[in-house]
Amino acid sequence: MPALTTYNTPIIQDWVDYNGHLRDAFYLLIFSFATDAFMDRIGLASDDRAASGHSLFTLEAHINYLHEVKLGEEVEVRTQIVAHDSKRVQLYHSLYKVGGDTELAASDQMLLHVDLAAGPRSAPFSEQSLEALRVLVEAQHDQPVPAYINRTIGLPAKP
Amino acid sequence: MPALTTYNTPIIQDWVDYNGHLRDAFYLLIFSFATDAFMDRIGLASDDRAASGHSLFTLEAHINYLHEVKLGEEVEVRTQIVAHDSKRVQLYHSLYKVGGDTELAASDQMLLHVDLAAGPRSAPFSEQSLEALRVLVEAQHDQPVPAYINRTIGLPAKP
Repeated sequence: MPALTTYNTPIIQDWVDYNGHLRDAFYLLIFSFATDAFMDRIGLASDDRAASGHSLFTLEAHINYLHEVKLGEEVEVRTQIVAHDSKRVQLYHSLYKVGGDTELAASDQMLLHVDLAAGPRSAPFSEQSLEALRVLVEAQHDQPVPAYINRTIGLPAKP
Repeated sequence: MPALTTYNTPIIQDWVDYNGHLRDAFYLLIFSFATDAFMDRIGLASDDRAASGHSLFTLEAHINYLHEVKLGEEVEVRTQIVAHDSKRVQLYHSLYKVGGDTELAASDQMLLHVDLAAGPRSAPFSEQSLEALRVLVEAQHDQPVPAYINRTIGLPAKP
């Protein structure tokens, strides 16, 4: 089982601007699909969601745009667990061309496990999900620290 | 002239999940359209872009999800200038129901003014854009400090 969850997609017409470049919001849509792929890894696939009534909600997302991405390119998201507790998980999504080694965009996200039927309301992960998180975190112990986390936004101080 | 730039839209079918809730990436798409509306205010409307060859690129965006938004709701983005220098502008986009006073989502963003023909490459704002920025900042001097800026992501420290 690979250490990082991955999600691959081509860049489609619906996602690009008049110049054929991926529009900012659609980077986040691709990362959102990568979260879906991650959910499959921890027992929260859409079939399970229907059965269990649980899902992940995004609380906060930070995204850094590093390079332009063009119509037709095949991209890959690599997803790393930064941290988790009993009901939250912090993910780092990183976008590459398939097989590439240049980070095109990155997103640091905090997600909350919710019980859909109860509100939705925050709820502890199941034992099955916690075990899957433990296995993934262990498999990722030698991954480098993500480049774009713990960031605030601001202009440089004036000299 | 109103102090804040606004952008209104209904929540359409393409933007919601199987539960009829606005999907996380489409909050950012709505904020992206609000950036377009802001560009119109500083002489970077799409017609001008074609003529001048200049635009704004998103460098970094932070988004906080505060409340669910549903299919068919009419929402309004209110956009405030947090800061700017000669070629960057930091915007705060805030999402409300039209006429409402509960913040549904917020996005703190850093945008770069670029010369599309030259690369794209970063470029100073025109005098016209700088003057428009000055007028807007002056008109916004009594706006409250945005709630969701200067944020990092992390789990609370364990007791």
